Amino acid sequence: MKKIRVAVVGYGNIGHYVLDALREAPDFELAGVVRRDPSRVPAELGNIPVVADIAALSGVDVAILCTPSRKVEEYASRILAQGINTVDSFDIHTDIPGVYERLGKIAEAHGKVSVLSAGWDPGSDSVVRALLEACAPKGITYTNFGPGMSMGHTVAVKAVPGVKAALSMTIPVGTGIHRRMVYVELEEGADFAAVADAIKTDPYFAHDETHVRQVESVDALKDMGHGVNLTRKGVSGRTQNQLFEFNMRINNPALTAQILVGAARAAMRQRPGCYTLIEIPVVDLLPGERKEWVRRLV
Amino acid sequence: MKKIRVAVVGYGNIGHYVLDALREAPDFELAGVVRRDPSRVPAELGNIPVVADIAALSGVDVAILCTPSRKVEEYASRILAQGINTVDSFDIHTDIPGVYERLGKIAEAHGKVSVLSAGWDPGSDSVVRALLEACAPKGITYTNFGPGMSMGHTVAVKAVPGVKAALSMTIPVGTGIHRRMVYVELEEGADFAAVADAIKTDPYFAHDETHVRQVESVDALKDMGHGVNLTRKGVSGRTQNQLFEFNMRINNPALTAQILVGAARAAMRQRPGCYTLIEIPVVDLLPGERKEWVRRLV
Repeated sequence: MKKIRVAVVGYGNIGHYVLDALREAPDFELAGVVRRDPSRVPAELGNIPVVADIAALSGVDVAILCTPSRKVEEYASRILAQGINTVDSFDIHTDIPGVYERLGKIAEAHGKVSVLSAGWDPGSDSVVRALLEACAPKGITYTNFGPGMSMGHTVAVKAVPGVKAALSMTIPVGTGIHRRMVYVELEEGADFAAVADAIKTDPYFAHDETHVRQVESVDALKDMGHGVNLTRKGVSGRTQNQLFEFNMRINNPALTAQILVGAARAAMRQRPGCYTLIEIPVVDLLPGERKEWVRRLV
Repeated sequence: MKKIRVAVVGYGNIGHYVLDALREAPDFELAGVVRRDPSRVPAELGNIPVVADIAALSGVDVAILCTPSRKVEEYASRILAQGINTVDSFDIHTDIPGVYERLGKIAEAHGKVSVLSAGWDPGSDSVVRALLEACAPKGITYTNFGPGMSMGHTVAVKAVPGVKAALSMTIPVGTGIHRRMVYVELEEGADFAAVADAIKTDPYFAHDETHVRQVESVDALKDMGHGVNLTRKGVSGRTQNQLFEFNMRINNPALTAQILVGAARAAMRQRPGCYTLIEIPVVDLLPGERKEWVRRLV
C-alpha cells in the first residue's frame, strides 16, 4: 500500500508529538520537517530532512501545520496553493468561520483539502458536541476545561513584549465558565503592570476572569496534563432530562498531535474544500479499511 | 425550504417516539405510518394516514424502520428497491457486516441510501468508540451498559413460544461484562424450564450470564431508563495513560428515535450506498446549514 507522504511544518511542542504519532502510524511516510531556521536540527530528528520551504521536499501529500494559531492561515494558504493538503489545530474559536471560508476557496481553487481546527478543542470535542446536539436537539451543553495548561493561551502570553516565559492555566469554575491563571517570567526592565494589562486585553483573555502572577521560574510549574468535562442535559423528541457527559484526562500536545495525524489521513479521503472535524466521517480518521472498522466498532 | 417526506414503518415503542421526534423537527413532513394491520389506528395518530404498504404513500423520501431487528433486512431491501431511502436501528452486532454488505448492494443498485444500525448502540456509541480510537490508537475500550431494559433483548424474549410478557434488564458488571436479568410472564400451560432454556441459547443471550425469573406482572417492573459508561485508556502517539469516558442516562426509545430521525436527515445527504453512523459526518445528523453548525459547535 502506498504510504501518505507528510511534512511537519513547525517543530515546537506539537511538532515533536506529531513526529511521535507519525512514527506509530502504519500508513505514513515522513517527507521532512519545515522550520524557519533549518540549520537548527534537534538531535532526535536524526537524518530527517529539515528545510526552510516545503517546496524543497518532494511528493508531499499533506502538511501538518504545527505553527502558532495566528500563523495557520498564512501557512495553509501558501501550502494549499502549492497543491498540498493541509491540516491544523487552529484554536481561536471566534475566528474559525472567517478562516474556514477563506481556506475553503483556496482549497477548492487548487483541488485540495484543508482540515481546520483539528485538535481536541476545537476538534474532537466539537464532534462530541455535535453528536450530543443530534441526541438531544433542545438543551444546554457546557464545556468545562482543565485544570490544565492552555497551549494557545500560553503562546499568546509569550507574544506579549516583556514576557520571557509564560504559562496560562485554565481553571474550570462550572457551567462552561473558566478562570485564567497566568504565570509570567519577565525580561529585565519589563513593566509588570503593562504586561498584565496587555494580557488581559488580548482576545484570548478579554472575556474570562484573568489573574496574572509574576514568578521566578515558569518551568517549575509546567505540567502538560489537561482535562475536559463536557455535559449536555436536553430533550430527545419530547422526552426531557436526557443526560450526557464526556470526560478526559490527557497529555494535551500528545492528543492534539494524534488527532492532527488522523485528520491528515482524513484529508486524503475528502473532496476538495475546507473541513472541520464535524464534517468528516469519524471512520476517515482511522487507518485501513472502512469495512473492518464497521465490523469492529459499530 | 422543501421538507423531507418521511414514512414511519412499524408503530410500536420506537415508532411512537419517532413520531414525537418528527413533530419537534423543523425539516420533516410525515407522509404516514405503515403497519401490518392498518385498521388498528391508535387515537394519538389522529388523521395521519395508516397504510399496510409504503407504496400507498406518495412521494416518500425516506422510511424510518421501527420494526424488530430481525425484520430490518427484509423491510429495508424491499423499500430500497421501491426507490426510498431507509434508516434503522438494527442491533444484532454480529450480523451487522453481512446486512451492511447486502443492503449496500441493493442501495447502490437503486441509487438510494440505507443507514444501518443508527440507534445509540450500535449508533451514537459507535461514533464515540471510533472517535476515541482516533484519539488513542492503542488501548482498550470498554462499553458498559445499564442498569436498564434492553429493547432488543426484550423483543427476542417475547418471540420465545410460551412467553406472554417479558423484560430483559442489562446489568453492568464492569470491563464490558454484563449480566442479563430476564423477567417473564408465561402463557397458560407453558413450561418454564423450556422457556428459560430457549432464552439462554438465543444468540442475544448465549454469550452472557443470563438469569431467567418468572414473575406475575412484568408491567410492574418496567422502566425505560437506560445508561452507558464507555471508557478508553490508551496511547496517543507514544504518550501512555490517556483517559476518556462517556456517560449517559437516558430514556432508551426516546434516544433511539431521536437518532433515527437525525439519520433519516443524513440519508438525504449521502451518495448511494449503505452507511453506519461512523461513516457519516456528524453534522449531517443536524438540521439546517453546515456553516451555521461550524460557527456554533466547532
